Amino acid sequence: MSDPVSLLQELIRCPSVTPEDAGAQAVLKARLKKLGFEITDLPYGEGEDRILNFFARYGTGHPHFCFAGHTDVVPAGKSSWDNDPFSADIIDDVIYGRGACDMKGGIAAFVSAVEDFLSKKNNFTGSLSFLITGDEEGPGINGTVKVLEWMQAHNHIPDFCLVGEPTSAQTLGDVIKIGRRGSLNAVIEVEGTQGHVAYPHLADNPIHKLMTILTSLTQPVLDNGNEWFQPSSVQVTSIDVGNVVTNLIPATATARVNIRFNNLHTGTALKGWIATQCHRVAEHCKIDIAVSGEAFLTEPGKEVRALCEAIYSVNEVKPRLDTGGGTSDARFISQYCAVAEFGLVGQTMHKVNEAVSIHDLKQLSTIYLNVIDALFE
Amino acid sequence: MSDPVSLLQELIRCPSVTPEDAGAQAVLKARLKKLGFEITDLPYGEGEDRILNFFARYGTGHPHFCFAGHTDVVPAGKSSWDNDPFSADIIDDVIYGRGACDMKGGIAAFVSAVEDFLSKKNNFTGSLSFLITGDEEGPGINGTVKVLEWMQAHNHIPDFCLVGEPTSAQTLGDVIKIGRRGSLNAVIEVEGTQGHVAYPHLADNPIHKLMTILTSLTQPVLDNGNEWFQPSSVQVTSIDVGNVVTNLIPATATARVNIRFNNLHTGTALKGWIATQCHRVAEHCKIDIAVSGEAFLTEPGKEVRALCEAIYSVNEVKPRLDTGGGTSDARFISQYCAVAEFGLVGQTMHKVNEAVSIHDLKQLSTIYLNVIDALFE
Repeated sequence: MSDPVSLLQELIRCPSVTPEDAGAQAVLKARLKKLGFEITDLPYGEGEDRILNFFARYGTGHPHFCFAGHTDVVPAGKSSWDNDPFSADIIDDVIYGRGACDMKGGIAAFVSAVEDFLSKKNNFTGSLSFLITGDEEGPGINGTVKVLEWMQAHNHIPDFCLVGEPTSAQTLGDVIKIGRRGSLNAVIEVEGTQGHVAYPHLADNPIHKLMTILTSLTQPVLDNGNEWFQPSSVQVTSIDVGNVVTNLIPATATARVNIRFNNLHTGTALKGWIATQCHRVAEHCKIDIAVSGEAFLTEPGKEVRALCEAIYSVNEVKPRLDTGGGTSDARFISQYCAVAEFGLVGQTMHKVNEAVSIHDLKQLSTIYLNVIDALFE
Repeated sequence: MSDPVSLLQELIRCPSVTPEDAGAQAVLKARLKKLGFEITDLPYGEGEDRILNFFARYGTGHPHFCFAGHTDVVPAGKSSWDNDPFSADIIDDVIYGRGACDMKGGIAAFVSAVEDFLSKKNNFTGSLSFLITGDEEGPGINGTVKVLEWMQAHNHIPDFCLVGEPTSAQTLGDVIKIGRRGSLNAVIEVEGTQGHVAYPHLADNPIHKLMTILTSLTQPVLDNGNEWFQPSSVQVTSIDVGNVVTNLIPATATARVNIRFNNLHTGTALKGWIATQCHRVAEHCKIDIAVSGEAFLTEPGKEVRALCEAIYSVNEVKPRLDTGGGTSDARFISQYCAVAEFGLVGQTMHKVNEAVSIHDLKQLSTIYLNVIDALFE
């Protein structure tokens, strides 16, 4: 049986702090080439923004099952680690190092599962692929988004994509993510007319108008959630005027608003809604809205069911199908095909002494193998 | 007839920029002493806070009519004047200089009126007095407040006090102030629980609570005003959070609120009301409220009627009885006796090229003389 441990160690020892690659993708490509994958290098960006990515596919038929992951990691951070964050030391059956769980461990587990699958499968007519980026922890511009465009243009869009992010919360297998809420940030600046506070009729207080706008955004219940999503949430994260003079009505007032929205809304519709609320109250109003991700959902189908069964068969955990938390590259993939995210326990991700136990790593590899088996039965 | 012009020039030439006196009060005292006033120097404060004030009274009987004024002026400012702000140059029958209208002109006009009155009045049984401070443009601690305490202790509280501030808006005589709104400043800081904006149920957004509080303070109509006062007004003058991170619910949010209130309210009652609104919404809330002045009103009696008649007889203007605008020392005097404010046109007060026309100055002196005549008829 293939062993994910040495592959993970090899990957950790490449200090691929985003946007650097440091040889990490070459390690993977060599392994996949040996298995017979057809590999296409897909670097994007110029100069300092240049990012290494690749797409690798085995077979040309369907079903086409893709694994998506990133080889870049966040910096080791300023706090000191007990061991070198890029030495991949094993202490008491735990592998330490930056990227151990987010997400070189997930990649190593899937490669190992593919090795086991292909070593025994002779009559395989589907295809397996890897979408590997070096830009997930960075700005996310020259990575998955552009690789997907290339895949689309070259007829490589899979039937299902599994993102190997560390979704497990406490125990390996307890959480599968089948969607995410969208996120929107708005900056609203209301212009009024400055004046003396003793003569409010000669001024036009922008704070009062801003409060009316913000109340109209935060008071209504946007929705009550649905089977898969919690209710959408509107939070004012800052209001700033900066007027220290007690007798002055200020000229402008600015608020920052974040909306985490479920699949009952779209970023475009919410942008329109915010603009309507603002202009109903304030004639002069600057609105700057950025949608950092739309909500998406993969209604659980046979792939997610296979994943649940694989998890239960390995460690008797019944996973929760979740749509909470922050964003990942799954939001881009969801625009092309069904996608789910499942991987290691994420408790040490981005932290000092990031680690994965060999036990979890091997279990994850077995779970992935069982899923592959089930999908190509 | 006495001439206020030379006295005003003499006063302007003393650069009594608050808290300096620069000889201004000595000029006045010499003039009043010659008329037979009994003068008491009332300096208060120590070191740099030392302020010169004096009380001067002619006669001991009643009615006792007091004129209140300040000899201190605001600085000339950084913008350049056409002439030296302390040279009191006369150009085209206009006297230029810092304090010309606020309010050395008012003082000169009243002294001149008193000189004329006493020169012709032989059977005078009432009394006339001057409450002169050098702390009106400054912090207002060692001036009128303490002189009034001394007057109270020495049985010098008048029946009526006229404050010679430049109340006229466009034309001499168009506005008499018979009261002022009160003013209150509140700083409200709501404490919440910081957290990630994607998990609002694990946080407690202090901005949302602050908005609810501010809405409860600004939405209700406090009153509709009354015969003499415009409606009270609640204005939020600043909200400050200072959170630049878009994915963070902040820990605290602070607002500044100013209330200008009429005589249907007291500062104490409003303090209680604000506290109630805050604590109804937010358990953890720091409230800091300063009442800088209570509302006051002198219901127009024979003195204000005499003032109106004197104005009309001199320049055919019918004054508006007003309670608007900012605060003056009248708010302190109102705690002891009936008070009204009337003086020159204030358009150039605190500005570059502050000025008064000789025509207005002489008319004001005549109006003041007519009032004195009427009150001691």
